[in-house]
Amino acid sequence: MKRGKFITFEGGEGAGKSTQAGLLAERLRVAGLGTVVTREPGGTPLGEAVRSLVLDTRPVPVTELLLFAAARAEHVAEVIRPALAHGTWVVCDRFIDSSRVYQGALGGVPRDLIDAIEAGSVAPTFPDLTIVLDLPPETGLQRTASRGALSRFDAESASYHRQLQEGFRTVARAEPERCLLIDADRAPGEIADDVWRAVETRLLAEAR
Amino acid sequence: MKRGKFITFEGGEGAGKSTQAGLLAERLRVAGLGTVVTREPGGTPLGEAVRSLVLDTRPVPVTELLLFAAARAEHVAEVIRPALAHGTWVVCDRFIDSSRVYQGALGGVPRDLIDAIEAGSVAPTFPDLTIVLDLPPETGLQRTASRGALSRFDAESASYHRQLQEGFRTVARAEPERCLLIDADRAPGEIADDVWRAVETRLLAEAR
Repeated sequence: MKRGKFITFEGGEGAGKSTQAGLLAERLRVAGLGTVVTREPGGTPLGEAVRSLVLDTRPVPVTELLLFAAARAEHVAEVIRPALAHGTWVVCDRFIDSSRVYQGALGGVPRDLIDAIEAGSVAPTFPDLTIVLDLPPETGLQRTASRGALSRFDAESASYHRQLQEGFRTVARAEPERCLLIDADRAPGEIADDVWRAVETRLLAEAR
Repeated sequence: MKRGKFITFEGGEGAGKSTQAGLLAERLRVAGLGTVVTREPGGTPLGEAVRSLVLDTRPVPVTELLLFAAARAEHVAEVIRPALAHGTWVVCDRFIDSSRVYQGALGGVPRDLIDAIEAGSVAPTFPDLTIVLDLPPETGLQRTASRGALSRFDAESASYHRQLQEGFRTVARAEPERCLLIDADRAPGEIADDVWRAVETRLLAEAR
């Protein structure tokens, strides 16, 4: 059986990751491809427990990294890897790049540790395509605030959110074969068209 | 202010780690040394949450490693390191060697990942002395069963427990400057005398 493809969405708060993940999954299903949508932290009962734990407490960045990594290891082993092996496409809201940016670039956790964890608990299940939704931090925060969903990450300073945007841009530029930076300060349908074009060009052409 | 010393107890189920940790702390306090006793996983609210999570679910070994490592990072940053800096001695029931044995030697998690996590989240706060309580697995299991406290780790096969004992012996032998293997198939008072002798010889002579 042909292995499914693994697509992740990344970006700051309110960038539209879950909306775009849902829209992409719809198009993939219409195209006849079995698809599951999942998210991090979460995606498994253990992941949901970790999500609550991190949001409720305020662990030091390295603890946060390890907790998210634990949830990810379980998610990869129990959900993502089996789905891909069965030919199902997996669309995931946040994955390794969020750790690289939030705990790495912003939290100061050394890249060596992040790399070792990826090598020991994610490899070889890296995304085939990562869409990084790029949005001015003010716009993202306005969107998040307007749906009353500000988390403790959202309550950080404007300069934090600026660094966040820069962090995701750096991640996207470092791996152009895997990552595509998309302007997310547009209508959802326009963004979804760009995402679909990338999927067609980079993954479907090859899969057919 | 003079930094406190950091002592850990390691070994299989029912080896008497928490009993010995308590007895040692009493002697240290009688000797006029401020001492805290703590344990892993646990020791912080986040650690206790992780403890329940691991015992309730049955995560893959690498997830288990990362969860225990997250609890440890928090424990080191919030409890152990500040106490030592204030001159307090810290006695801890399980620490890095339990991860090396349970998830490493027995769970098959690569040592590279374990080393990277220790380097990134424990260093430079390694124990000054580690007492490894050595007990035939049958004796340990009988003790644990008689207090009605069998966990899922205890329910493993006899060969698992044999490997566990061997794993702890290997750990102790690999770092003789830090670790002392003590025969734990004796009365608690006798074991405590041996532990105290090690503390006097290895730590108090130097501390005075």
